[in-house]
Amino acid sequence: MMLQKIRDKAERVILGLNSGTSADGMDAALVKFRGAGIESEIELICHETFPYPDSLRLRLLKDMGPSSAGAAELCLISSYLGELFAFSAKSLCKKNSFPLEDVDAIALHGQTIYHHPVPFAFPGFPVTGTVQIGNPALVAERTGKIVVSDFRSRDMAAGGQGAPLVSYLDYVLFNNRARGRILLNIGGVANVTGVPAGATPDKVIAFDTGPGNALIDAAISHFSEGKKSFDEGGILARQGKVYDDLLGALVRHPYFQKQPPKSLDKETFGKAFFAKLIKDNPGLTSANTVATMTQFTIRTIEMGIMEFLLQKDISYEEIIVSGGGAKNETIIDSLRKNFPRLSLNSADDYPIMGRAKEAALYAFLANETIMGNPGNLPSATGAKNPVILGSITPGTAAL
Amino acid sequence: MMLQKIRDKAERVILGLNSGTSADGMDAALVKFRGAGIESEIELICHETFPYPDSLRLRLLKDMGPSSAGAAELCLISSYLGELFAFSAKSLCKKNSFPLEDVDAIALHGQTIYHHPVPFAFPGFPVTGTVQIGNPALVAERTGKIVVSDFRSRDMAAGGQGAPLVSYLDYVLFNNRARGRILLNIGGVANVTGVPAGATPDKVIAFDTGPGNALIDAAISHFSEGKKSFDEGGILARQGKVYDDLLGALVRHPYFQKQPPKSLDKETFGKAFFAKLIKDNPGLTSANTVATMTQFTIRTIEMGIMEFLLQKDISYEEIIVSGGGAKNETIIDSLRKNFPRLSLNSADDYPIMGRAKEAALYAFLANETIMGNPGNLPSATGAKNPVILGSITPGTAAL
Repeated sequence: MMLQKIRDKAERVILGLNSGTSADGMDAALVKFRGAGIESEIELICHETFPYPDSLRLRLLKDMGPSSAGAAELCLISSYLGELFAFSAKSLCKKNSFPLEDVDAIALHGQTIYHHPVPFAFPGFPVTGTVQIGNPALVAERTGKIVVSDFRSRDMAAGGQGAPLVSYLDYVLFNNRARGRILLNIGGVANVTGVPAGATPDKVIAFDTGPGNALIDAAISHFSEGKKSFDEGGILARQGKVYDDLLGALVRHPYFQKQPPKSLDKETFGKAFFAKLIKDNPGLTSANTVATMTQFTIRTIEMGIMEFLLQKDISYEEIIVSGGGAKNETIIDSLRKNFPRLSLNSADDYPIMGRAKEAALYAFLANETIMGNPGNLPSATGAKNPVILGSITPGTAAL
Repeated sequence: MMLQKIRDKAERVILGLNSGTSADGMDAALVKFRGAGIESEIELICHETFPYPDSLRLRLLKDMGPSSAGAAELCLISSYLGELFAFSAKSLCKKNSFPLEDVDAIALHGQTIYHHPVPFAFPGFPVTGTVQIGNPALVAERTGKIVVSDFRSRDMAAGGQGAPLVSYLDYVLFNNRARGRILLNIGGVANVTGVPAGATPDKVIAFDTGPGNALIDAAISHFSEGKKSFDEGGILARQGKVYDDLLGALVRHPYFQKQPPKSLDKETFGKAFFAKLIKDNPGLTSANTVATMTQFTIRTIEMGIMEFLLQKDISYEEIIVSGGGAKNETIIDSLRKNFPRLSLNSADDYPIMGRAKEAALYAFLANETIMGNPGNLPSATGAKNPVILGSITPGTAAL
């Protein structure tokens, strides 16, 4: 049968599909795997981004709201994204002259519209939950391929936060007998993954350190009245003076004391947080506020690394920085100054980074599921045990 | 691996889980299968209903509304039902002293909160969709069993209405070399399944004929001001005189001219339809209205059978009646009078009928999916082709 046939192959090609939290478009990546688990050999064949029209992006952002979308909207938009994902999968193959028939399976993460890792009280059972839309049955029917989907639910059913799932891929890509590596991604939120030298996967530590670019961008956008969206190179931050009292108050947020594994939603230090900060602190000026927000990001990244990664018995030699914040020289200069014994490198020098990484991640996790391996790292997600992730929808042939 | 191990067994025990459209409770059934496909031997081991508290029923009914529930509510209630389904599965085994370890797989239909088989226009792709809640990852994690779920989406992806899925089970249970059988279920909506003598599955015809008890019940409830909910034995219908003009207008509804496969949602001839009818026709009296609604049900059932089932080259010998309407003697008398050559029997004499049937149906469909067989009958659902239904979530072991 099909599943065993795919398992028996020396090489598998899996097509990963993903739509980011900002709902700006779909990513599709073709990834080749030899083997599975920590010995996986991973090769990115090709990747494309399929941007959404504004109308769809705004609709999806609205659907993520707590009470804006009913069952009808969520059902139909999930089918619609299913059609678009199938279309993107075929387009990726066509554009890159890769025959669809050589794809062994599709990994469909879909579009997250809700993620609630904190237990919510219901009678008898506290529950957590996550919803990714993009109907897998449609993708399976249109492509004829086995589809692996719903990667986060099982980790949460096992008591985990359903995130970060990327830590396992980071382990496979970056683990090294001689060099301990800290992967730092500075997106809207900033997160770190520590892969100590010669570590087994259960020694990987991953968590969100705090804000990444979100508050810096919010400050820039606020003071430029929307004309600018980010602090290019971190130049404005360098011109301002940090409001020490404000910074002191910000870093006392209880999140920073929590032990990992821990994760943030994008709301905690997002636009509404910044709007309240501006309202509560009248008279803030442009450069000083950008400087303060930049320091808030820097301090919480550095605190996270120092308190939770750099322990006596664990050795790290390198920080590899990715995300938009890697181009903010104010941030990078501080890291270089404060961690003089760690070499600071850009993720651009490594394969499968940047925009292709998420889609490649789900292809990697689907390969694990197909091969019958767990795909979560409990040390990163907080799950009680490793679990096989996802659900498998048959293609044209029997599983 | 697990899937092949289950396939290789001579007998499989599958636990079916379902929550009905009225959201009054969960049904759980243990069903034993020998073989698969049209030769399946099916034995109901046990069945239990786990009623919902009123608060949950009302919450679910509200969630079904077009705009009442957001992503957060649908996500968390899906996890909550997942916990309850897992709990019901274990309770069923415990109550009936059936060891959970002897269950090979779980079939999870969940709770339908939206079903839209009519294509809805989106840019580029018209879409249909269906959503059943009840998180399969939770059921798999709590029970350790393989879970087959989301039975309707794939049929809809293949152009079908996602319903009726029961026709295939009806075929397997009732097909007979010598006797053609018409299965008539009179619930809120009335539906028929024709299984001609010696037919192959693709000759099964199934469709909703029109209203079942819904409008009769609505009339009784209206005129008794809520004191009564149904016309016991069809007695009031017999005392009234049919409003012929009104009946004539009702049967001209375009639905009745449509060729099968066709299906109704419960709204089309539901409470709101009756309320409008009462408003548009002032002066209607109790017994006459009940008589007219009863005739509307009878006529449309009889029209459906005559126009779409009793064709020259197809032979039927028997009508088997199930559902609440089977106890309405006004309906049964009419069928007996108008189809004198067909013997009229009660479904109560057959196994796997009544409340256990839905849960047993999903167990049956899960058995087909596990065995790699399609589970839809395109002649019943309108799908372009037979498809393997559902998605499979691994249990504790690899698939």
